[in-house]
Amino acid sequence: MSQIELPVVDRPGPPGRDGADRFHEECGVVGIWNHPEAARLAYLGLYALQHRGQEAAGIVATTPDRGGLVGVNGPGHVADVFDVEKLDALAGCAAIGHTRYSTAGDSSPKNIQPIQIECKFGHIAVCHNGNLVNAHILRHMLVQRGSIFRTTSDTEVLVHLFAKSGQTEELEAVAEAVRQAEGAFSLLFLTEDALYAVRDPRGFRPLLLGRAGDGYVVCSETCALDLLDGEYIRDIEAGELIRIDGDGVHSLKVFDEAPVSQCIFEHVYFARPDSRVFGRDVYKTRIKLGESLAKHTGVDADVVVPVPDSGLIAAIGYAQATGIPLEMGLIRNHYVGRTFIEPRQSIRNFGVRVKLNPVHAVLRGRRVILIDDSIVRGTTSRKLVQMARNAGATEVHFRVSSPPTTGPCHYGIDTPLRSELIAAQQSVEEIRQYLNADSLAYLPLESLQDSVEEERDRYCTACFSGNYPLAVPEPDHARSLFGKERH
Amino acid sequence: MSQIELPVVDRPGPPGRDGADRFHEECGVVGIWNHPEAARLAYLGLYALQHRGQEAAGIVATTPDRGGLVGVNGPGHVADVFDVEKLDALAGCAAIGHTRYSTAGDSSPKNIQPIQIECKFGHIAVCHNGNLVNAHILRHMLVQRGSIFRTTSDTEVLVHLFAKSGQTEELEAVAEAVRQAEGAFSLLFLTEDALYAVRDPRGFRPLLLGRAGDGYVVCSETCALDLLDGEYIRDIEAGELIRIDGDGVHSLKVFDEAPVSQCIFEHVYFARPDSRVFGRDVYKTRIKLGESLAKHTGVDADVVVPVPDSGLIAAIGYAQATGIPLEMGLIRNHYVGRTFIEPRQSIRNFGVRVKLNPVHAVLRGRRVILIDDSIVRGTTSRKLVQMARNAGATEVHFRVSSPPTTGPCHYGIDTPLRSELIAAQQSVEEIRQYLNADSLAYLPLESLQDSVEEERDRYCTACFSGNYPLAVPEPDHARSLFGKERH
Amino acid sequence: MSQIELPVVDRPGPPGRDGADRFHEECGVVGIWNHPEAARLAYLGLYALQHRGQEAAGIVATTPDRGGLVGVNGPGHVADVFDVEKLDALAGCAAIGHTRYSTAGDSSPKNIQPIQIECKFGHIAVCHNGNLVNAHILRHMLVQRGSIFRTTSDTEVLVHLFAKSGQTEELEAVAEAVRQAEGAFSLLFLTEDALYAVRDPRGFRPLLLGRAGDGYVVCSETCALDLLDGEYIRDIEAGELIRIDGDGVHSLKVFDEAPVSQCIFEHVYFARPDSRVFGRDVYKTRIKLGESLAKHTGVDADVVVPVPDSGLIAAIGYAQATGIPLEMGLIRNHYVGRTFIEPRQSIRNFGVRVKLNPVHAVLRGRRVILIDDSIVRGTTSRKLVQMARNAGATEVHFRVSSPPTTGPCHYGIDTPLRSELIAAQQSVEEIRQYLNADSLAYLPLESLQDSVEEERDRYCTACFSGNYPLAVPEPDHARSLFGKERH
Amino acid sequence: MSQIELPVVDRPGPPGRDGADRFHEECGVVGIWNHPEAARLAYLGLYALQHRGQEAAGIVATTPDRGGLVGVNGPGHVADVFDVEKLDALAGCAAIGHTRYSTAGDSSPKNIQPIQIECKFGHIAVCHNGNLVNAHILRHMLVQRGSIFRTTSDTEVLVHLFAKSGQTEELEAVAEAVRQAEGAFSLLFLTEDALYAVRDPRGFRPLLLGRAGDGYVVCSETCALDLLDGEYIRDIEAGELIRIDGDGVHSLKVFDEAPVSQCIFEHVYFARPDSRVFGRDVYKTRIKLGESLAKHTGVDADVVVPVPDSGLIAAIGYAQATGIPLEMGLIRNHYVGRTFIEPRQSIRNFGVRVKLNPVHAVLRGRRVILIDDSIVRGTTSRKLVQMARNAGATEVHFRVSSPPTTGPCHYGIDTPLRSELIAAQQSVEEIRQYLNADSLAYLPLESLQDSVEEERDRYCTACFSGNYPLAVPEPDHARSLFGKERH
Repeated sequence: MSQIELPVVDRPGPPGRDGADRFHEECGVVGIWNHPEAARLAYLGLYALQHRGQEAAGIVATTPDRGGLVGVNGPGHVADVFDVEKLDALAGCAAIGHTRYSTAGDSSPKNIQPIQIECKFGHIAVCHNGNLVNAHILRHMLVQRGSIFRTTSDTEVLVHLFAKSGQTEELEAVAEAVRQAEGAFSLLFLTEDALYAVRDPRGFRPLLLGRAGDGYVVCSETCALDLLDGEYIRDIEAGELIRIDGDGVHSLKVFDEAPVSQCIFEHVYFARPDSRVFGRDVYKTRIKLGESLAKHTGVDADVVVPVPDSGLIAAIGYAQATGIPLEMGLIRNHYVGRTFIEPRQSIRNFGVRVKLNPVHAVLRGRRVILIDDSIVRGTTSRKLVQMARNAGATEVHFRVSSPPTTGPCHYGIDTPLRSELIAAQQSVEEIRQYLNADSLAYLPLESLQDSVEEERDRYCTACFSGNYPLAVPEPDHARSLFGKERH
Repeated sequence: MSQIELPVVDRPGPPGRDGADRFHEECGVVGIWNHPEAARLAYLGLYALQHRGQEAAGIVATTPDRGGLVGVNGPGHVADVFDVEKLDALAGCAAIGHTRYSTAGDSSPKNIQPIQIECKFGHIAVCHNGNLVNAHILRHMLVQRGSIFRTTSDTEVLVHLFAKSGQTEELEAVAEAVRQAEGAFSLLFLTEDALYAVRDPRGFRPLLLGRAGDGYVVCSETCALDLLDGEYIRDIEAGELIRIDGDGVHSLKVFDEAPVSQCIFEHVYFARPDSRVFGRDVYKTRIKLGESLAKHTGVDADVVVPVPDSGLIAAIGYAQATGIPLEMGLIRNHYVGRTFIEPRQSIRNFGVRVKLNPVHAVLRGRRVILIDDSIVRGTTSRKLVQMARNAGATEVHFRVSSPPTTGPCHYGIDTPLRSELIAAQQSVEEIRQYLNADSLAYLPLESLQDSVEEERDRYCTACFSGNYPLAVPEPDHARSLFGKERH
Repeated sequence: MSQIELPVVDRPGPPGRDGADRFHEECGVVGIWNHPEAARLAYLGLYALQHRGQEAAGIVATTPDRGGLVGVNGPGHVADVFDVEKLDALAGCAAIGHTRYSTAGDSSPKNIQPIQIECKFGHIAVCHNGNLVNAHILRHMLVQRGSIFRTTSDTEVLVHLFAKSGQTEELEAVAEAVRQAEGAFSLLFLTEDALYAVRDPRGFRPLLLGRAGDGYVVCSETCALDLLDGEYIRDIEAGELIRIDGDGVHSLKVFDEAPVSQCIFEHVYFARPDSRVFGRDVYKTRIKLGESLAKHTGVDADVVVPVPDSGLIAAIGYAQATGIPLEMGLIRNHYVGRTFIEPRQSIRNFGVRVKLNPVHAVLRGRRVILIDDSIVRGTTSRKLVQMARNAGATEVHFRVSSPPTTGPCHYGIDTPLRSELIAAQQSVEEIRQYLNADSLAYLPLESLQDSVEEERDRYCTACFSGNYPLAVPEPDHARSLFGKERH
Repeated sequence: MSQIELPVVDRPGPPGRDGADRFHEECGVVGIWNHPEAARLAYLGLYALQHRGQEAAGIVATTPDRGGLVGVNGPGHVADVFDVEKLDALAGCAAIGHTRYSTAGDSSPKNIQPIQIECKFGHIAVCHNGNLVNAHILRHMLVQRGSIFRTTSDTEVLVHLFAKSGQTEELEAVAEAVRQAEGAFSLLFLTEDALYAVRDPRGFRPLLLGRAGDGYVVCSETCALDLLDGEYIRDIEAGELIRIDGDGVHSLKVFDEAPVSQCIFEHVYFARPDSRVFGRDVYKTRIKLGESLAKHTGVDADVVVPVPDSGLIAAIGYAQATGIPLEMGLIRNHYVGRTFIEPRQSIRNFGVRVKLNPVHAVLRGRRVILIDDSIVRGTTSRKLVQMARNAGATEVHFRVSSPPTTGPCHYGIDTPLRSELIAAQQSVEEIRQYLNADSLAYLPLESLQDSVEEERDRYCTACFSGNYPLAVPEPDHARSLFGKERH
């Protein structure tokens, strides 16, 4: 199996996230074991992880009388999905929860997690952060053997592998299932008897273990633990499977050894700045990215202006390193909802304008350095440059606290197709012209890797470097079966 | 396998429909093939079949570009589940729909039909009216072989049998699946290429074929066809499998021959009086039941009063046969909703009172014959007798247009446990005393059978006669696995 | 002021109820005094009166600590407007409630009653069944004196008259306000200290006094009292004002004597058949109407078929008088909702079809007498005749249990414009031709009046006879001010 | 009338905003004249002004056929209240809109603005930002003269004054009404013929005039204008009444001259930092406040940490002035909803924790300066100090970019009672001890005034200085009438 890119994902296509539903499961997960308010703690955890997915949320809990599992889920924000009555119906002392990213154009309720089923091992619920690179192959194999699929999510593949396991012990069946999966997965399994947490052997996505009261917490980022007033114990290790049950925490190594490939984009953008992921402070990494950016891309200017909120921490680092004052020249409207009604008659750059408004007092007559964490399609960045110029900026220099994004992620971050990534198609100078910026500079890849210091080899930088640590197998004939279901 | 009753259903239990969800799927189904407004016609059909189930409704349709199947479903009445936008999203020219009975205490959205999955044969949706007596055995077998279940419904069993079929042709796989099922089933399967309709070899539940425009309709009762301005062609025969595709209607006999056992309770109560089912006018049957009742249970009285609306047609027959005038001595409140708020401080017989109100002008000083179609637990009937007395009736004679209901239905009607059926526990005289009626009489079983004339042997009367045409297999160890999941 | 008809109401206009909102307030009212669950009883009363109005409902109650009045209201059915939480918030021991008819095209929440305000007499809530014929004059006068109006309802006029009264006592102010009103009004006023009930001097609309527990009930029909398990005391008399307070019930005559003109249409159609209104059983009156209809319009036929549900009771009377058997040849769909989605491609007579379905077994080959309570525009009746013919009826004779409706009601029933009343425009023979009936006959006016026996002079028959007991004053310049606000 | 404080507002009371509903109308307003999408522009304006009130929103528009005014309003955020259908129903070319602050415990829909009525001048809608100090007196006077009140808002008082005016011209009536009002008011009146905008003679609250397309915009802050891509023309002057009609903009001076008293708290906290209010950049003022704070309250520390988002701009100024680096040591959860469900079992400082999370990497082992714009009750500030300490801060110095808040606002900002203002009850040292901060310092009043430079005399600083520019009249007997209606 050679290291190729999956053509089906990267072909030219309509705007939006083509096939995103099948291959990407960007999200946050939380599991609670042995706490009298397990579902409420899971709810809080999801609340803290809301930035990892706002499309839908779900929680499955055990029942006090061990009568199976019960679940509540729905589209929208965590706070919209649950109410007191629903949380009170999730009364057992163990629970897992999931919050899911909004992929344009697919609001199918079927894909909401956790998936909850009954099989020969009894009741089980599963939720998943990541993306299996061999999901289509496994799915094709399962379907040929008579499995039925109700969703397009990778997670259902894992559920089938578990249910079809020849093992007799639940733990063995979990291990057998995950061993067949390739790709990025931080997984939680809840049964009536145990909570399982698994991280793939390369550890693409974060997952950590903590403690709340007399119970345990497993979650994507420490910010979830913070809200619960929980205590961080340690990261689930790459390739580790843990089972938490009445006897405590049991750790197994169920995968062959593999080089660790943690997602550096969690530090650049995805994780919350108040979190630790992969044992490292996100905030500190971002400050460092800003400092490096300043060092490598310095330009004479009057003011450093972050694109809120994603560029703020790097901009602080940049300003501190250069001595150029930081000012909030763009203000974010905190009340932006998803169902905003546009005027029929067009207003220039309306989509950006409704989210961000320039501060003339900051920009007027100034040479401005705009700082953002990344440029994807370039359309928003272009409008921001124009907005700054309209507000009176005499020069606009655009600085990006990561390298050019040249490739899609196959390991769980929902990046657009390569054809939509401006840096995959154009040179930096061409992008600068498109943005109409006076200058444009990105952080060098080397500097990005420096930001995680001695652990630089333990990170995946594929979307910046093209260096994909894990191949995406050719889907073959599987495509002909499933290709038609894209919505 | 001896002809026994299923202990799990008939054991003493908490009030409500114990296990109803697993074993009973009372409902209405409709399928449309080759009509530009297939989903709207399915919607209309469900609207007309709303009396067969008010808990939930769903429609799955093909897509104009043959890109799989799309579905909409939700809890509540048909009119609440769908709106113009949702119907417009179901744009293909074939569709199937399902409306489901409200079973107390289980509002799980998971069980909403049609079930829609992807398997090796592609996309398929299935809906079902009936009850498989061997569902638990099939389910146990499937689970042991690694199948996963997301619902507790019989229908999912059929879906797995289909997906696991060793056949290579879709039609063969449908036939193989349904051949393994035992019990009552009127089934619809929709794929991208065909609509299948199946009736079990005993034909417990109705299903008929009609025409609308250039297309075909399959539905439970003719009232659905009437609303669509469709034309009745013929009943799907007991044991018949039809496939409707681009080449028209194909009929297959896929089951071994078996005696036909159509549900007589459809005529007594369940079907709409303006429908034909099993090739017979429901209205006429009910009039005949009333006439027979008069003949066998005559009593001197001043007025015949139906319990609206279920007793109305039989009461008309009764009144005509006796010459005693029919009067509407009980008036139904047409606006009764399901979420009625009771006063905290008790009002006598409130539950009945909110639905029915006596007409003093009819009842005062009169000897009254109350007519209803059946007595289940007896609690409501008792309150109606009291209501009539309070309104001034000098005598209250209760007449029932069917025999005593002594056993549960295992073939798709959601009757309560035997322990809750008053006629299974008490003699007619004891029931009379409980009702506090001056007299009580039921229609003799013989007369009930006479009402369907020369077809009397083609009807199941098990709930009245105890004569179950199809045994319910002992669940054995299957129970230990699934018994715990009752909510 | 001469006895003329109001041109503004009767002019040709767009379909729908022109100006209905201003001039018509068809509805049901209920008031509770001194009951620990006053609001819940008001809710039950509205539930029983739901047939008098389904557009909106509201309840205003006192507070336990005498801190003003609190109200809940909303669009839709009573069961949709209230939930346990909302009812529990209405915690005082007195309450009034109102349910309102749906007038096409005006769903303005502003007009929802009871109206609740604060004025110099403190807090007051008012609700109203009826129609003031001088509302526009009073409104014009009030507006000129600086009053502001937030609704288009007559009720707000009464509220202003009360608030502007020069009287110092609340009771006197109520009396002064209602004395200025002309027309039809059954009114309830709730203050923190008393519940007032008023019926206009002609007593157009019903209102009666009852008892529930230690408290009092005032409501439109006895069916509300029945549901509460209350006891009927007596009708509020025409022209009577009662005040119920801590000292009991006080009765005043505050109007000049006037001939009583009770609405005979309450007996024909509007009231529930299980109610008594104006001291007379509605059911009995309807039976008599059917009997008279038989006597005056006899025709040889095979079967009497009511248009459900409005024609049912008269059809029973008709059948009994003629000996022709009654059969339910048209079946009503009890699940018809208001937001039904029609197919895009037309289905013949869809609007009627979705509500009523013919029973072929009854109609096929039969000479049919269709019985309805009245014919308004004739469009539905025409479709029913066609439906019967399509179902195989060999003859269709249409009989109406009231005289031709030739004029609009100005006293609280929401009839259409004269121009839309088929009997105001066409002869009986012309209507017969339009309906395509084999014969058509109405109940003679004389017979209608006979149905209320010795009280025939105490009833208004204006919509049938053109004999308007109370003139509608010419609106003059008032029209120029308000004419424009029709939606 | 002596300069006293209103006891009813400042008495000790239950937590929450006692009487807030009557006396305070904190909100944002927008008016559009002569634009084909007037209601959509009003919607956008409210969207941009959402920070001025999230409890409820409403828009009233003219109709294309000059048939009165139509309105839509409801509880919640602007994006929740409106949808495309509702906006499309507001089809005229003029509109006014209002967004309202959430006052705890009063979600009465009655108080939603704009108020829309009909009176002798025709249809009129009014909305209001501010607070009338003589509202209770005017209301008492009006009630005695027979006016009715449906709300507890000041705005209804203005509506009555207008409707009762003896003037014959609309403009004169508006002028007469507002001349009777005392206090803070930025008002919009919409009639079918004109849009009026008024600012009270002291100009407490902002209001400005702009242009969008061929039409005019009036709104609270320039950020609304920015979103519409509109052009700022000028502020409405204190004491100015403008009428915008088919002939353009007409300006009148209708009040006696008075010293201008613009609200300095708009600059400190209330207005958006990207707005200009009172002709001055809010951003610049806040930077200045931070710089002054640094100058006056300098302390040796390692890091400046803003309390997001209110303290951010001042913190930037502070950091720049001191050279101490700014870091985001507290991260705000952007997804906090209003209906958050707390765990039953208490989590320490949960209410703060769910909104803000500390960044250990910033705070650990550091001497921290926390910057916020003001301290109201002190409870949140205390928790933040504790949160910083728990995260490892070695010292926590609290700095406030305004003086101690010692008095309530009577001019439209919804501050709590004096008894709840910690700075009204305790010395700075006592507050420091309560906060458990190593040091606490406020900005001196003098410096606050310096921040608006030469216009320092044109600002109200009453909540900081106790120097109330306008007395609140003693309510006298008015209280006895209305005091009871507090919810």
